[in-house]
Amino acid sequence: MARVLTPQNEDFPRWYQDLVAKAELADNGPVKGQQVIRPTGYAIWERMVDEIDDRIKETGTENASFPLLVPQSYLQREAQHVEGFAPECWTVTHAGGKELDEPVVIRPTSETVIGEYMAKWVQSYRDLPLLLNQWANVMRYEMRTRLFLRTSEFLWQEGHTAHATYEDAHAFTLRILHEVYADFMRDVLAVPVLAGLKTADERFAGALNTFTCEAMMRDGKALQMGTSHELGQNFATAFDIRYLGSDGKEHLSWTTSWGVSTRLVGGLIMAHGDDNGLRLPPRLAPVQAYLMTVKDGEGVAETAAKLRDELKAVGVRVKHDDRVDIPFGRRAVDAELKGHPIRIELGPRDLAAGKATIVRRVDGSKTPVPLESVVTAVVDALAADQAALYDEALRFREERTVDVSDVGEAVEAAATGFARIPWDKCGVEGEATAAQSGVTVRCLQRADGTVPDNEEPGLVATLARAY
Amino acid sequence: MARVLTPQNEDFPRWYQDLVAKAELADNGPVKGQQVIRPTGYAIWERMVDEIDDRIKETGTENASFPLLVPQSYLQREAQHVEGFAPECWTVTHAGGKELDEPVVIRPTSETVIGEYMAKWVQSYRDLPLLLNQWANVMRYEMRTRLFLRTSEFLWQEGHTAHATYEDAHAFTLRILHEVYADFMRDVLAVPVLAGLKTADERFAGALNTFTCEAMMRDGKALQMGTSHELGQNFATAFDIRYLGSDGKEHLSWTTSWGVSTRLVGGLIMAHGDDNGLRLPPRLAPVQAYLMTVKDGEGVAETAAKLRDELKAVGVRVKHDDRVDIPFGRRAVDAELKGHPIRIELGPRDLAAGKATIVRRVDGSKTPVPLESVVTAVVDALAADQAALYDEALRFREERTVDVSDVGEAVEAAATGFARIPWDKCGVEGEATAAQSGVTVRCLQRADGTVPDNEEPGLVATLARAY
Repeated sequence: MARVLTPQNEDFPRWYQDLVAKAELADNGPVKGQQVIRPTGYAIWERMVDEIDDRIKETGTENASFPLLVPQSYLQREAQHVEGFAPECWTVTHAGGKELDEPVVIRPTSETVIGEYMAKWVQSYRDLPLLLNQWANVMRYEMRTRLFLRTSEFLWQEGHTAHATYEDAHAFTLRILHEVYADFMRDVLAVPVLAGLKTADERFAGALNTFTCEAMMRDGKALQMGTSHELGQNFATAFDIRYLGSDGKEHLSWTTSWGVSTRLVGGLIMAHGDDNGLRLPPRLAPVQAYLMTVKDGEGVAETAAKLRDELKAVGVRVKHDDRVDIPFGRRAVDAELKGHPIRIELGPRDLAAGKATIVRRVDGSKTPVPLESVVTAVVDALAADQAALYDEALRFREERTVDVSDVGEAVEAAATGFARIPWDKCGVEGEATAAQSGVTVRCLQRADGTVPDNEEPGLVATLARAY
Repeated sequence: MARVLTPQNEDFPRWYQDLVAKAELADNGPVKGQQVIRPTGYAIWERMVDEIDDRIKETGTENASFPLLVPQSYLQREAQHVEGFAPECWTVTHAGGKELDEPVVIRPTSETVIGEYMAKWVQSYRDLPLLLNQWANVMRYEMRTRLFLRTSEFLWQEGHTAHATYEDAHAFTLRILHEVYADFMRDVLAVPVLAGLKTADERFAGALNTFTCEAMMRDGKALQMGTSHELGQNFATAFDIRYLGSDGKEHLSWTTSWGVSTRLVGGLIMAHGDDNGLRLPPRLAPVQAYLMTVKDGEGVAETAAKLRDELKAVGVRVKHDDRVDIPFGRRAVDAELKGHPIRIELGPRDLAAGKATIVRRVDGSKTPVPLESVVTAVVDALAADQAALYDEALRFREERTVDVSDVGEAVEAAATGFARIPWDKCGVEGEATAAQSGVTVRCLQRADGTVPDNEEPGLVATLARAY
């Protein structure tokens, strides 16, 4: 088969760029750093949204919509927050042909505007917890951009919650990390993630603690897939989010925020893609079974339609490609690029033999299957391939993770993967040293891999180069 | 019961404002004309999105995402379009602390940027039709705003399609009007809409024809609920959307665009709401059955949980309110305000009698129902009330629609409702005269109520005051 993409081993960033273009996932927008997400890419994002939204709603969180534009003065109320975001803002100065009285910025995130409304809506302890989420676009000015991974505008969800106590806010931050993010990433995306605590240096601007899910890409670099922030009382103080307690006294609330973005699409591509294109985990895939009419012939259309209906009936997301006027090879290459987990090929020759050919994207294997067994074979293959992708990614990460005992070794190991080092052998000084070589502390975990509540003795740091 | 809202007959705009605030649907945003859609309001919008999105996908249209920011130069390429939108634009002049080389505007609509990409993606007749949609926020500067109905930022879907022929584009414009918009509005929103053609004066900036769905609100005014535009070759010319035909020659495409927005939420409120609050049609309602524990008592919690599970099992969207520490009356008023179609009240006294009380929002009727019949009663009531709301709205519109024979009469009739007049007795001059009294031509239909393909002899105009 002709080479379609630059091989990963030759030039990984180029492979990524080729894939995003040739699988028709996204395009650069007309304004610097913006992106156009094409239908093939957007269908992947829609599936992510569905799965994440279900999990968010399971926690009792409700969706809402807050404005795109934020007064500059809002941003300035929390000192660290304005420091973190002011340099990245896009500013609107005119509307309706006139200059605005006060310039407003396109939200880089909605902490401040939501803080303002929480203060209004939270009056008594009965109003807590207040659990809000929004699916929205945000903008941050970026000098160097890459489709899905770093763009000036991106789509995301941002959760914002207010609680009566530190304990409740803390537990909710971790619940989102585990039950929404890590669960979705592992079970749906088939991406093994490290869940852990960020160092002070990598924390969200204004947060007490930031928790993160970190994944290894197929070039050994890390990608931060999602974060959950414990904001303490910083925003509650800045926006005066107070409530009357059951004790009859006024108290400050405790808030959290958490988000994942279209960056997840980039992570998915780089975690599973190979030299032939994307490989979509079956649970996520918008098209799980891509049914291809190889060429026309007696009974082919009828059999294909019957197969399609049978697959739909058992809940398989199936798409029928009967564009026999386009060369089969071209369509097959396109299907590999787009990463549909299963391809079912059906032509007159197959039909004469009473069979169809099942091609599995995960390993490229081709198996002729009797027509009456196709549905079962597809269902089985989808389940097996979901597990296979996860296992492959986990093995890859384990093979490229090295335990080291000083920062020099960590930087060396980070050339090809992750380095694990006791945090007390690294510390903020080691972190600064590593940063000079472009290596960062991705997260801190307990020695057994669990997530600490705070920085505590005995933590292990994972260092890597990162996107 | 104490008066909760300003009555509709006393002050309809005030009633609307009261309802939006007290049912916790939306709030004003911090920047002029922006809105915060609160969870109760957003859940309604989410249900609309689900239903509309299903219908859009049925037409073969795929979702995508285009950038928020549009170069000013794009807007200028289509003469009528720039004239229509330039005065409404919000302009971004700075990013990352620096002035931009070219100012960019926040999309007032995405015709221009999508035109640019269609030109790139459409090469051959095989690429047509290209059927795209996006769910997005847009901004238009507005001097006088009203939550949901007219806001500077709103959420919407905008469909954009390119076709090989006039006939195909024309048919698709009408397919969206009928199968997506009118079908959704009638069947899900229970709002009877007039589908028709806009006059030249009311057309979208740059369109050949605009088709519309118009509904009557409970103050007799019209609301434009959604529009579908035939853009002819205007945008294809401006953006050079050409394709190589099967005849081996280059041709210009024909494009369409169509949209509905969060304005639909305002329309829903004003089409069905009464002096006690919102009345949600069951098919749309995020909560169809609101199950209230009146007060605690032996077996109440268990029975409520059982009822909830049984209702869920038959597909009813049910919410259990067991906040017995909040006075029952307050909760009941709130449920009326929010418009849940069915309320099920269960307390120790009901339980002792082996019954629950079913309260129907549509007419306020209360019926004690044996516990074992509650599920059936709820399912039946939901179906009946969907029809009842539609019938009531239709009757209301019919009672307030008058056939007239000159523009003066039309203006008079528009004080309380719709006026129907042969278009040749009104014409562009009559339209201008009526406009001086704040009355506009909402749409043109054939005498039998069907939608004309173009302006043709014998059409009937419906005139009204409008939002």
